[in-house]
Amino acid sequence: MANQDDQFKKVISHAKEYGYVFQSSEIYDGLSAVYDYAQNGVELKKNIRDYWWKAMVQMHENIVGLDAAIFMHPTTWKASGHVDAFNDPLIDNKDSKKRYRADVLIEDYCAKIEAKIDKEVAKAAKRFGDAFNKEEFLSTNGRVVGYQEKIDGILARMGKSLGEENLADVKALIEELEIADPLTGSRNWTDVKQFNLMFGTKLGASADSAMDLYLRPETAQGIFVNFLNVQKTGRMKIPFGIAQTGKAFRNEIVARQFIFRMREFEQMEMQFFVKPGTQKEWYEEWKQTRLKWHLSLGMGADNYRFHDHDKLAHYADAAADIEFKFPFGFKELEGIHSRTDFDLSQHEKHSGKKLQYFDHEENKSYVPYVVETSIGLDRMFLAVFSNSLVEEELENNTTRTVLKLPAVLAPVKAAILPLVKKDGLPEVARKIVEELKWDFNVVYDEKDAVGRRYRRQDANGTPFCITVDHDTLEDNMVTIRHRDTMEQTRVKIEDLHDIIKQEVDVRTWLMKM
Amino acid sequence: MANQDDQFKKVISHAKEYGYVFQSSEIYDGLSAVYDYAQNGVELKKNIRDYWWKAMVQMHENIVGLDAAIFMHPTTWKASGHVDAFNDPLIDNKDSKKRYRADVLIEDYCAKIEAKIDKEVAKAAKRFGDAFNKEEFLSTNGRVVGYQEKIDGILARMGKSLGEENLADVKALIEELEIADPLTGSRNWTDVKQFNLMFGTKLGASADSAMDLYLRPETAQGIFVNFLNVQKTGRMKIPFGIAQTGKAFRNEIVARQFIFRMREFEQMEMQFFVKPGTQKEWYEEWKQTRLKWHLSLGMGADNYRFHDHDKLAHYADAAADIEFKFPFGFKELEGIHSRTDFDLSQHEKHSGKKLQYFDHEENKSYVPYVVETSIGLDRMFLAVFSNSLVEEELENNTTRTVLKLPAVLAPVKAAILPLVKKDGLPEVARKIVEELKWDFNVVYDEKDAVGRRYRRQDANGTPFCITVDHDTLEDNMVTIRHRDTMEQTRVKIEDLHDIIKQEVDVRTWLMKM
Repeated sequence: MANQDDQFKKVISHAKEYGYVFQSSEIYDGLSAVYDYAQNGVELKKNIRDYWWKAMVQMHENIVGLDAAIFMHPTTWKASGHVDAFNDPLIDNKDSKKRYRADVLIEDYCAKIEAKIDKEVAKAAKRFGDAFNKEEFLSTNGRVVGYQEKIDGILARMGKSLGEENLADVKALIEELEIADPLTGSRNWTDVKQFNLMFGTKLGASADSAMDLYLRPETAQGIFVNFLNVQKTGRMKIPFGIAQTGKAFRNEIVARQFIFRMREFEQMEMQFFVKPGTQKEWYEEWKQTRLKWHLSLGMGADNYRFHDHDKLAHYADAAADIEFKFPFGFKELEGIHSRTDFDLSQHEKHSGKKLQYFDHEENKSYVPYVVETSIGLDRMFLAVFSNSLVEEELENNTTRTVLKLPAVLAPVKAAILPLVKKDGLPEVARKIVEELKWDFNVVYDEKDAVGRRYRRQDANGTPFCITVDHDTLEDNMVTIRHRDTMEQTRVKIEDLHDIIKQEVDVRTWLMKM
Repeated sequence: MANQDDQFKKVISHAKEYGYVFQSSEIYDGLSAVYDYAQNGVELKKNIRDYWWKAMVQMHENIVGLDAAIFMHPTTWKASGHVDAFNDPLIDNKDSKKRYRADVLIEDYCAKIEAKIDKEVAKAAKRFGDAFNKEEFLSTNGRVVGYQEKIDGILARMGKSLGEENLADVKALIEELEIADPLTGSRNWTDVKQFNLMFGTKLGASADSAMDLYLRPETAQGIFVNFLNVQKTGRMKIPFGIAQTGKAFRNEIVARQFIFRMREFEQMEMQFFVKPGTQKEWYEEWKQTRLKWHLSLGMGADNYRFHDHDKLAHYADAAADIEFKFPFGFKELEGIHSRTDFDLSQHEKHSGKKLQYFDHEENKSYVPYVVETSIGLDRMFLAVFSNSLVEEELENNTTRTVLKLPAVLAPVKAAILPLVKKDGLPEVARKIVEELKWDFNVVYDEKDAVGRRYRRQDANGTPFCITVDHDTLEDNMVTIRHRDTMEQTRVKIEDLHDIIKQEVDVRTWLMKM
């Protein structure tokens, strides 16, 4: 755990130091769980978005894009169930006036018991050395087994009570466990209440005509309400998909873990409309296709796993997460959901408009079933960034910090460095910049010794450093240094464009799918 | 005027029919002044955004990007002046309970007088025929001169009263002119009040800690609050710029003219930080650079003009608009503003943090001055789309509707069409699609006669149609048809990629700047 925390702290500070992610409104001491993407972050985010868009829209003849507004008619959220059921269970401490998520208080209590287990394990491991068998210890040591049973019992009861909306029992559980306000120690709690996570606002100024709006909590509904317009004007035939990227907003009470869970975040979603009865095949198909997309980035197959949901949301008949190994453990990165005809049927009911597709082959109309792929762009950013940040021990016993971003996603593709700031080398370097910048985001850097510049570009995630030296003036060749291997080769200036293109081109990477 | 209205209606209906722009939440009868970008619209919007980003960020060594959140600390808007001064003057009708913008009621009144002038002009033009001199008529005809003087007097008085926040006189003017509620004819008005245009919402759930937030009314402030973080982590030297695209929100009372003025819209802004005293040079420089960017798209130099502001906002020492000839006349498309050190100084004052730059050449610190370029992405979309939509009379006395989008911005770059749906032609066409789609957004279309498909692609804005016929099977050549000229040439399949790239590549277009 300590190591994980350290690594995560390094990720956060590196993200700031190298211009990837800043806290929002930092000069005003920040805004909780809101972040800004800085000069490198904006490019990494854009490159991830483009890589997704290209794979999903451009490469699929039967998938088109959409960009629906954040504001939608409020009935949309009545139909989708968000007005009635998009809640967190909250509890207030009467003394401190602080508000908490009831389920998080209970989970934190369990985490403390978990920490005791970890301690026992560490103690035993030390005592038994190589002979220590962790699995066996966990299942036979009386104390540890007791702890685990206690945790399981608490979580099962909480799950049941929340599932049945029995909020009185959630409060009873908190009281029985003698859970106290973590800030003050007070156990003087109010009842548990449901709190809606949507941000509200008002459209229009007139007292009698102002309309209560919500900031969308998901982008999916923008696709559903436009389904028929897209299908008709785009002459789409089932099966077909509509893809969208865009902001969504959730008034999270517990928003933590840096950009993993934010109040304002960006989704990349695709809704695939299929014939009823074929949804299970398409669900399996999309699970595999999406995993392949992740694997194409070469961040290690071991860092991904599927988590199939046992408990399904009311709209789903199958659901799975692609989990990624973040610095704080395996967590959801993307969801694949078989949403049935729930959303379209709800919108039919609430709008009074038919949202059906006429299937010429079957010669009948039906409400299509939907398979959704939904990934958080900010989470994907965090996955890529945290996985890429490594400290390497070098042969000369020094270390280097290097951000091994997949080259297709790197913000800056190449840094052009004159070996020295004189003898005409800067001029040649700038000429190379002028040519390459048409197709790649490149930088010019002449400050400090070249070794230091290499390290800076390593930490920045730049895949290539191109050095202009005195020989360049004679032979029109430069040294190209590869970030990950630190290998240096001598190439012709005129070949630079194609060498870089080969390594950073979307095609090169998507071909690995 | 009638012609303009007709043309504008055509633009709106074409935008829906061809999957460019849909009304938001149409199945729920729409949300006023909010629109969704459909399958072609999302691509056109993306291409405009990329064209701007490439020209502003990638091509400029001293301009970097940023992607700040929509949510910002509320003090930001106190500092920027938006909490106190971002208002519209509103008036309610006591009988109808309807609310109006007071200045719009007065402007509409003037527009009616203007219509009388137009009528006199039309009458005289008909009477005098070729001998009619409009300029002379406007300045000599007694009735027309009287009308114009009345309009000028009304607008001058309104401007003065609003400038001095003398809202009582704005109401007095409405009463003197006997302006009535356009819906009911009632003249029973309330006083004029200022109404803030920012959308508000609440962050957090706790009664005592919930924070009043605003949806940002402009993206610029996200750049100012991050100025020092970007400058330091990016090692930027003055002069340098920070560019950003993103959503902004204004609770407009009168939101009309399709996507020209929306409540939710997207801005593309660049703030250029300069040494105090050099701002005028940079202001002139950026006026010219931005105009060149527009002209590079080849939409006609006559369609642009500068409008220098006489009356300046409180933060500006110079300001100009680039106006474009929309279907409803010349209107602001982009603004270039010399904002002085107003914003940074305000943020210094409200945050208590120094926002100064240390200038090594001058060996002193100062708050930089700022020159801003600010363009509405949705307006740019409307400019491109409306300017591109034309109806052409052909030689055979038929007409064709063609959307002459600049090829670099067109959503679909090429349509691949098998002449007939048999004899192996679809297979060859699909093979071409499979190859081209790596680099271009292309479609396959086999439905209807080829002539009809050409028309469909013309109306869709697709620059190239590539037809596979029986000869293709023998000679590996296809017919490529150019949208604007309808010229058809026979080319090798293997040359298609380079032919298309040459015409749609950003480089080709930016080279025209």
